[in-house]
Amino acid sequence: MMNRIQQLIHAIKPVDQECAYQANEHLNQLTKPQGSLGKLEDIARQVAGITGEVMPTFEKKAVIVMAGDHGVCEEGISAFPAAVTPQMVLNFLYGGAAVNVLARHAGAEVICVDMGVNADLEHPNLVSRKVRKGTRNMALEAALTLEETIEAIVAGSEIVDELVAKGYRLFATGEMGIGNTTASAAILCALTGVDAGLAVGRGTGIDDATWLHKQSVVNRALHVNGLTGRGVSAGAGVSAGAGVSAGAGVSAGASASAGSSGDYALEVLSKVGGLEIAGLVGVILGAAKHRCPVVVDGFISSTAALVASRLAPLSASYMLASHLSQEQGHTKVLESVGLAAMLQMDMRLGEGTGAVLAFHLIDAAGKIMQEMATFESAGVSRG
Amino acid sequence: MMNRIQQLIHAIKPVDQECAYQANEHLNQLTKPQGSLGKLEDIARQVAGITGEVMPTFEKKAVIVMAGDHGVCEEGISAFPAAVTPQMVLNFLYGGAAVNVLARHAGAEVICVDMGVNADLEHPNLVSRKVRKGTRNMALEAALTLEETIEAIVAGSEIVDELVAKGYRLFATGEMGIGNTTASAAILCALTGVDAGLAVGRGTGIDDATWLHKQSVVNRALHVNGLTGRGVSAGAGVSAGAGVSAGAGVSAGASASAGSSGDYALEVLSKVGGLEIAGLVGVILGAAKHRCPVVVDGFISSTAALVASRLAPLSASYMLASHLSQEQGHTKVLESVGLAAMLQMDMRLGEGTGAVLAFHLIDAAGKIMQEMATFESAGVSRG
Repeated sequence: MMNRIQQLIHAIKPVDQECAYQANEHLNQLTKPQGSLGKLEDIARQVAGITGEVMPTFEKKAVIVMAGDHGVCEEGISAFPAAVTPQMVLNFLYGGAAVNVLARHAGAEVICVDMGVNADLEHPNLVSRKVRKGTRNMALEAALTLEETIEAIVAGSEIVDELVAKGYRLFATGEMGIGNTTASAAILCALTGVDAGLAVGRGTGIDDATWLHKQSVVNRALHVNGLTGRGVSAGAGVSAGAGVSAGAGVSAGASASAGSSGDYALEVLSKVGGLEIAGLVGVILGAAKHRCPVVVDGFISSTAALVASRLAPLSASYMLASHLSQEQGHTKVLESVGLAAMLQMDMRLGEGTGAVLAFHLIDAAGKIMQEMATFESAGVSRG
Repeated sequence: MMNRIQQLIHAIKPVDQECAYQANEHLNQLTKPQGSLGKLEDIARQVAGITGEVMPTFEKKAVIVMAGDHGVCEEGISAFPAAVTPQMVLNFLYGGAAVNVLARHAGAEVICVDMGVNADLEHPNLVSRKVRKGTRNMALEAALTLEETIEAIVAGSEIVDELVAKGYRLFATGEMGIGNTTASAAILCALTGVDAGLAVGRGTGIDDATWLHKQSVVNRALHVNGLTGRGVSAGAGVSAGAGVSAGAGVSAGASASAGSSGDYALEVLSKVGGLEIAGLVGVILGAAKHRCPVVVDGFISSTAALVASRLAPLSASYMLASHLSQEQGHTKVLESVGLAAMLQMDMRLGEGTGAVLAFHLIDAAGKIMQEMATFESAGVSRG
C-alpha cells in the first residue's frame, strides 16, 4: 500500500520550463507595460509550464468536495453539531449549497465525495469512497491508522484519474466536515511548529471561551500523539516555489520525493488529520501527476496542500492559491507552501467556494493570452 | 455651469437602508455560517441598498474607458511616449486591449470616450466629448480652467444618463492617458496631505531616477498651483462609509453636499487633474444619481472616486472597489474613500481591467442571493 504512495509521488514530474518561457515571451508582445497584468501573467506562465501548452484552455473543470467527520467533535470545539456534515452533503447533491451556486457560475462541475461521513448516505451523484465513519478522537488517540490514511490518499488520486479520463483538466479542492478546522490547525502546528494560539481560528463562528478550549484540545492532541516540538518551517528538500517569476520561467528545483520529511507528513496526517483532508492530498498529487493545475481553496484545503508539498515537493508547482480566508492560520499555511492568494474576500466557508471563484481568473488569464493584440498588430509604440 | 454640478450632487440620495436590511435577513437564512461569505455578502447588501431591490440583476454592464492627454508629459515623467494615448484608444476601439478581452469575459460592453486626447480621432464607436487636446502642463500652470473641469464632469454624467436610458445598470470606471499617474498622485497629495514620496508610483514602469524626478514634478505642480499644505485626511462633512456592515444595514450619515470641502476638491481637480479623471468623477456621480453601483478600478480611477466623495459624500455608498493596484498610492486613496479591494492581483495597467474582473464577483453575489438553499428548505441544522 505504501508502495502506491511512492508510485504516485514518483509520477510527478517538474513543470515544463521551456513552455513557461514561451508563454512569457508572448505576454511581452502584448499591448501593455511588461508585467502590468500581475498575477494574470503569473497564472498564464504557470499553467503553460504545468500543461506543456503555451495557451491551454480548460473546457471541463471540476471542484472536488470531500466530506468526512471528526471524532474530536466530542470535545465540543465547533459552533455546529456534527450532524451538519451529512446534511450539507445532501445539500451539495441537491445543488443548494454556496459551492454549487458558485461552481455553476464558473461553469464547473461539483464532484461530491463521501470520504468518511458518520452516516449512511446514498445518492446517484455521490461518489462513495468511505474509509470509515469519521476519524477517532485525536485528543485521545491517533485519528487514523497509517493504512486508513493511505487508502484515503489513493482514493483521492483515483478520483482524479477518472475525471481526467472524462476530459477534466482543471481542478479545485473543497471540503465539508464539522471539526475540520481543528484537525487542520493541529496539522499546521505539527508540521510548521507554529503555536496553537496562531493556528486555531474561529471556524464556523465560536466564542472566545470555545476558541481557547479549541486551542487546548489541539495542544492535547499534539501531546497525546507525540507530535509536540517536531514541526519545522520547511522540511528537508522542500523548496519547490510554486511561483513563476517573469522571464525566469518556472523554478522547481526540488527533489521528487521528500524522504523523512514526507514520512513525518504522513504520520501527522494520520494522527491528527481527517479523511477528507487525506483525500484532498490525493486529489492534489493526482492532479500534479496528470499535469493539471489544481486550485486550492481556504484553510483546510491549504493544509492538505501543505501535506502534499511535504510528501512531494514538486507538487507545489501545480497548485494555485485562490483566496485568503478569514481563518487566522491560513496566511501561515500559504506561506509554508509558497503560495499567494488572488482574492481577499474575507470568506471562511470552505466547500471550495473561494477556489471556484478563482476559476474565473484562470479563464481570464487564458483569454489574455489568446485574444490580446500585440504592439505590432495594433501599431502601439513600446516604452 | 457650476449650477449643473450642484444639481448633480443634490440628485444623489442616501441608499435604501430597509432594502439592505432585507437582503441581510435573507443572507442569514442561507445554508452557511452567518457572514461566512464575507465580501460576497457585503456586496449583496450594498447593491440592495443602492438599487432598492433585494435581489437586483444586472443584465447590461458597461466599463466606461475615458482617455485624455497630459501636458505634464513634457517634463519626462513616463516610460511611454504621449503618442501611446491615441494609439491605445484605437486599440480599445478595435477590441485588442486587455480591457476589451476582460470585458468580453465578463459580458460587459466597453464604452470608449475621448475626453481630451491630443490627436484627431474618428471611429463609429468612439464617444467624442473632447474638452481640449490634453491638459496644460501642471508643473507650470493650472492644468485646466474651472469651466473645462466642469464641462468634463458634466460630460461624464451625461454618458451615464444615456447608458441608463439604454438599460445599463452596472458600471465600471476605466482610463487611458500617458502621464495620468502623475496627475493622480498630485490630486492625492493635494486632497489628503500625503507626501509625494508615498503618492508617486512607478506608473507604466519607470526607473529610480525618473521616479524621484516624478516626485519633484508633483511637488512643483502643487507649489505652482498653491495647493501645498492644504490637504486633510477627510474633508468637512465627509464620513460616508461605503461599507455596509452586517445587520446594521447601510450607514450613510453624510450630508448631501460637502460645501467648502467640495469647492476645494473641484479646485484641485482643475489645477492638477486631467480630463479623463474629471470625466470619471462625472461617471461616478451620474451612477450614484441613477442608483447604480459603480465599480472603481485602480489608482487613477480611485483618485476620481476620492474627488467624487469630496464633492458628494453620499456618492461613496454607490462605489465598490475592485482590486488593489501595485501603484503605491492606491492603498491610501482607497482608505481615504473608505473602500476595501476584493482582488489582489498585483495589476497596474488601468483601463478598467481590475474593475471588469470584479464584475464576476458582483454577479456571484447576486446568484448567492437567488440560488442558495435556506436552512429550512435544505433541512440543515443551525449552529
